[in-house]
Amino acid sequence: MIKVTVLGRASAKPTVTSHPSAQIVNVNEQYYLVDAGEGTQQQMFRRGINPLKLRAVFISHLHGDHVFGLFPMLSTMGLCGRQTPLKVFAPRPFGEMLEFHLKYFDEALPYEVEWVEVDTTKHCCIFENRTLEVWTIPLRHKIPCAGFLFKEKMPELNVHKFKIEKYSLSIAQIVAAKRGEDVVLEDGTVVKNSELTYLPFEPRSYAYLSDTSRSAMAAKRVKGVSLLYHEATYTKEFAKDAKARGHSTAADAAAVAVAAEAERLIIGHFSSRYKSPEVLLAEAKEIFENTQLAEEGETYTV
Amino acid sequence: MIKVTVLGRASAKPTVTSHPSAQIVNVNEQYYLVDAGEGTQQQMFRRGINPLKLRAVFISHLHGDHVFGLFPMLSTMGLCGRQTPLKVFAPRPFGEMLEFHLKYFDEALPYEVEWVEVDTTKHCCIFENRTLEVWTIPLRHKIPCAGFLFKEKMPELNVHKFKIEKYSLSIAQIVAAKRGEDVVLEDGTVVKNSELTYLPFEPRSYAYLSDTSRSAMAAKRVKGVSLLYHEATYTKEFAKDAKARGHSTAADAAAVAVAAEAERLIIGHFSSRYKSPEVLLAEAKEIFENTQLAEEGETYTV
Repeated sequence: MIKVTVLGRASAKPTVTSHPSAQIVNVNEQYYLVDAGEGTQQQMFRRGINPLKLRAVFISHLHGDHVFGLFPMLSTMGLCGRQTPLKVFAPRPFGEMLEFHLKYFDEALPYEVEWVEVDTTKHCCIFENRTLEVWTIPLRHKIPCAGFLFKEKMPELNVHKFKIEKYSLSIAQIVAAKRGEDVVLEDGTVVKNSELTYLPFEPRSYAYLSDTSRSAMAAKRVKGVSLLYHEATYTKEFAKDAKARGHSTAADAAAVAVAAEAERLIIGHFSSRYKSPEVLLAEAKEIFENTQLAEEGETYTV
Repeated sequence: MIKVTVLGRASAKPTVTSHPSAQIVNVNEQYYLVDAGEGTQQQMFRRGINPLKLRAVFISHLHGDHVFGLFPMLSTMGLCGRQTPLKVFAPRPFGEMLEFHLKYFDEALPYEVEWVEVDTTKHCCIFENRTLEVWTIPLRHKIPCAGFLFKEKMPELNVHKFKIEKYSLSIAQIVAAKRGEDVVLEDGTVVKNSELTYLPFEPRSYAYLSDTSRSAMAAKRVKGVSLLYHEATYTKEFAKDAKARGHSTAADAAAVAVAAEAERLIIGHFSSRYKSPEVLLAEAKEIFENTQLAEEGETYTV
């Protein structure tokens, strides 16, 4: 199961009610932070999410509204006595920023922060564990920027109980079937794996695409995604500005969801010019019906 | 008139409801920011205070919880098209931090940020205009740290209307009296200035003392202050920790208020161990009755 908690949906500058970009992606109770605008740690506290739980951090690009909140949180985790190393996946020159922060603010940090450089030009798997893969999605922004695709791995096959009885399968035969192999019975008959097994669930996926101009290539790379978050900074009347600034309109976001054949779309990263983002939602829904606004503090379950 | 708006009262790390140190000091509708913990700009927006209004920033010391919020705000003012230069008074090595920030996040800032180095070992006037002086107050913390004393200048004398009529004073004589001079009438009699004039108001003052261990010298230097803000991180049961960490107890803060013969005391910078700071207030009030808790968003008028 993947749960995405939106901590911020503002672009560039915060407003009275709205924070810059940050999200928590919870995959089978393992927590990952995606981008970290100012106020991220406090937004996490408000949702009862302890930064000490974080397994890794993924930073899409190094504009302040996506990273200013990381450094104060690194300090806080130090004050809280974190000892587990923390991997931060981010593009260059994050290493220099981290070095600077540690030198001036956290010389005695009790845990290691390990920077893993993200090549924003490549589509590849940068993180993997037993149940999850995280892939980079090159984006089109003013500075090097990559989105992230969280993909559950194919679960192990289950063997139908009634087949176990029908063929009185041995432990060894069940294990083989779970591995996807056909089973040869004592009398020599071969039972096809497809007859014995089933998938306990379809692997789910979540794609985070911000900040970016509309990208057909990005859509291709998240094809069939269960839940797509796409930035929608402007309405289409500002399409020119959006393109010039490496951003998207709500219509762009919806078009990417259509091209990607996404199941659901969430839009965010709203310009502060929109007192209410309903106009952005309406624009997107015209093109992709299953669209929701990112709401700060809301959790979206896949 | 001096108005102090508290934006944060948390020590070290923020909590769900509480922000790190930051205050707006408004002297005759000129706005100054004192310290800038994470979230300062959003806290200002919430109080309807526009960062573009800031005349200057005063940073007491370079622990993250007093400065992390400044850099995002510098970026926001750039996005808002600020052109007025901004002076930032702060100790070393703020210059390097500023340089780093500008290089990585704000290369094209449309206004100049001018760092003025604060010597935290000296008690001197670092800022002055027609109505205000700001003085440094050396403090006792783990790193170089100075508090700030905001002092209204002595206002120009007013001349009693009835004296003007009684002696039918000329414009020249009135101006001389306003300057504090005695006046010589046509018949040669000298009228003492004290008989002719009065102070329109007593100059007011505000002292910000955070972060620091209890300091008798600091108390001396803010003698007679109208409003004193003093940190009170702990209750006295943690007096040892307070001292070791360069902090104060609520009792310390109150003792400084007594020694300084302050009119009023506000305490803040509360450790997150205190779910409710009432216990700190009670401890301070035992020693200095006219004590209040710093409340985020509250404005204290002198």
